[in-house]
Amino acid sequence: MTEGLKDKVAIVGMGCSHFGERWGTGVDDLIQEAVSEACRDAGITIGDIQAAWLGTVMGSQMGGGPPSGLLLSQVLQTSIPVTRVENLCATGQEAVRGAVYGVAAKAYDIVLAIGVEKIKDSGYGGLGAQYPGKWDPVYAYGGTSPARYAMAATAYFDKHHLSPEQGKRLLAEISVKSHYYGARNPRAHLKKEVTVEQVMAAPMVAWPLGLFDCCGVTDGAAAAILVPADQAKRYRDDYVTIKGMGLVATPGWGKEMDDFDLTTWDATEAAANQAYREAGIKNPRNELDLVELHDCFSIAELLASEHLSLCERGQYQKEFTESRAYYHDGEMPVNISGGLKSFGHPVGASGCREAYEIYKQLQGKAEPSRQVRNARLGLSHNQGGHPGRFVCGVIIYGLP
Amino acid sequence: MTEGLKDKVAIVGMGCSHFGERWGTGVDDLIQEAVSEACRDAGITIGDIQAAWLGTVMGSQMGGGPPSGLLLSQVLQTSIPVTRVENLCATGQEAVRGAVYGVAAKAYDIVLAIGVEKIKDSGYGGLGAQYPGKWDPVYAYGGTSPARYAMAATAYFDKHHLSPEQGKRLLAEISVKSHYYGARNPRAHLKKEVTVEQVMAAPMVAWPLGLFDCCGVTDGAAAAILVPADQAKRYRDDYVTIKGMGLVATPGWGKEMDDFDLTTWDATEAAANQAYREAGIKNPRNELDLVELHDCFSIAELLASEHLSLCERGQYQKEFTESRAYYHDGEMPVNISGGLKSFGHPVGASGCREAYEIYKQLQGKAEPSRQVRNARLGLSHNQGGHPGRFVCGVIIYGLP
Repeated sequence: MTEGLKDKVAIVGMGCSHFGERWGTGVDDLIQEAVSEACRDAGITIGDIQAAWLGTVMGSQMGGGPPSGLLLSQVLQTSIPVTRVENLCATGQEAVRGAVYGVAAKAYDIVLAIGVEKIKDSGYGGLGAQYPGKWDPVYAYGGTSPARYAMAATAYFDKHHLSPEQGKRLLAEISVKSHYYGARNPRAHLKKEVTVEQVMAAPMVAWPLGLFDCCGVTDGAAAAILVPADQAKRYRDDYVTIKGMGLVATPGWGKEMDDFDLTTWDATEAAANQAYREAGIKNPRNELDLVELHDCFSIAELLASEHLSLCERGQYQKEFTESRAYYHDGEMPVNISGGLKSFGHPVGASGCREAYEIYKQLQGKAEPSRQVRNARLGLSHNQGGHPGRFVCGVIIYGLP
Repeated sequence: MTEGLKDKVAIVGMGCSHFGERWGTGVDDLIQEAVSEACRDAGITIGDIQAAWLGTVMGSQMGGGPPSGLLLSQVLQTSIPVTRVENLCATGQEAVRGAVYGVAAKAYDIVLAIGVEKIKDSGYGGLGAQYPGKWDPVYAYGGTSPARYAMAATAYFDKHHLSPEQGKRLLAEISVKSHYYGARNPRAHLKKEVTVEQVMAAPMVAWPLGLFDCCGVTDGAAAAILVPADQAKRYRDDYVTIKGMGLVATPGWGKEMDDFDLTTWDATEAAANQAYREAGIKNPRNELDLVELHDCFSIAELLASEHLSLCERGQYQKEFTESRAYYHDGEMPVNISGGLKSFGHPVGASGCREAYEIYKQLQGKAEPSRQVRNARLGLSHNQGGHPGRFVCGVIIYGLP
């Protein structure tokens, strides 16, 4: 029978590059920034690392760099096993997951998980420039990410009887919070606060998602050093353990296409339930101290929160926005790093970057203006493909 | 301390598509062929699979297909964790390795490892059409795979005092064997025998590698069902276990560039030694019953054999070619499936396809004309990037 992995693997060091438009910085530099900090934090040298999992979507094909697995070896100048993993926007979570299994299988004692994406200079036009291709029966043409999430937003407004004005304002409140925290996070990409009025008046991308409802195009990397939990004390006292993991890749539309509902995010729900079960969490809202979730668009924060069972379906406005429960001093802090929206979303890096935020919060080492008091348990969530439906990963981190 | 994984994980079912120019077959069909056979062989249904690792280099970007992880979910119509792994030509091995760690970590009881590549129709021109890019300080221009392996060949001839004629003939003997077995393997791509004279007279690709010294451009998929070894008997008596694994990604040229030797395949040697150590193998030549190694070119079989310690350096001709030791009834059978050369090399599939050959041989289920007698232990080897130097994976499979 399978056993849960709860508390078997620990993170003893983490690093995160500055996120942003890093025009003068290569993918190798981003890796170096994140890995160096992670090793310093763990008190180890690069030579101590026995194996690595590298999460990257675009790899280093851009710019004529070396193939992605080799890239890490070239930067680190070591000859160890390096595995590239990829799972759309959940790619960074896969780096952690691969590393966790490598340690839990007792194959290695010290491993590296790193997520990285160097998007600027690559010719990549951002989520708005995607071409989903003929495989998608619904959005074969024009189905960019903003368009898909916009449809989820209007479906949500309709389902929960919000007028266009009410719905747009609800989303704006979310973006205001994201920018509030981005402005308080020195490594974030977008460090400027915005007002509800500014978000409402911003240029439209795909109604109701305006410029400030969408994440930018960001370069960045984040890295973690993982060891068996029973060895973690050799490295530090305030280590963090893996409490539970969930991952789901669904067939997408498949047979259920007839009654498809854009506001039902079943992949998110299924992955969260896997992770909650493994972590032994019965009441996420009460037990989790902070959540870093995949807010590539403002509507994503809303629908993911509801499907992670942080609040009742359709009650996000009442439970979170009106009460400001999702601020760092609220009842259920969400994306108080700035999130993908303001901290940035270098695709393959985001899962590791979320882990970095939770790790620092649990250690009490976030900036004082956004530190959660006595945080002991945090959740990281990423999803890829159609909103909440295709690929979703959840990892829960906590103090031992 | 880390423990070895020897005999902890078992393969209880495998499948392999027909390899070849599958013009009328999509990547989804190839997956279906391999997975269906693997499930039938294991006596399970697709719905029993709890998690999957998909190895593919090009994914399904070609042809406008869905992103690679989702692809598998769409074909299988299940909602399970699916992870895409990639490590150049060792990608198929990574699918097995990821699955092994998932089982050894006790996260899952029944998992799928699958490697697939659909190359025809993709616009891919084969190994001869690669552009290594500016990151490579030696072969920045014109350094296609045939050219790089050709340089390894001429360096080998020089080192071991073979005339051009002697060297070319030595390589031709290897290709003759590959085609001999391809002709006896119903699922192989190139099923036609050739003579030494034909190989010698074939059109030149990169001297001394002619047309028959190079693998073709092949579509295919192979899949394995893995379970904890202590549960394997529920599925079958003649299951196969993982005995040892090795994987190395090197910095490539790095600091040692000054004294770089094209005939020293240190990644191959290092990965093999990791696997031998874990499997407890002291004398590979005596203990291994068959080897499936990465013969993308005839010279690769020669140099890989020497660096896997199957024979002494420089003694390949004497120990293997002259004595025909590497035929199925010889002392050290190598690539008696036809190898990458004649069975085919759909990049991401090859590691899994080698596993398939070893699995069937250990069960005594290969075609009688090429069945090794009483085979109990087999080795699979793949490498990517510069010959023997960049990425190398080795997995050893055996009867329990």
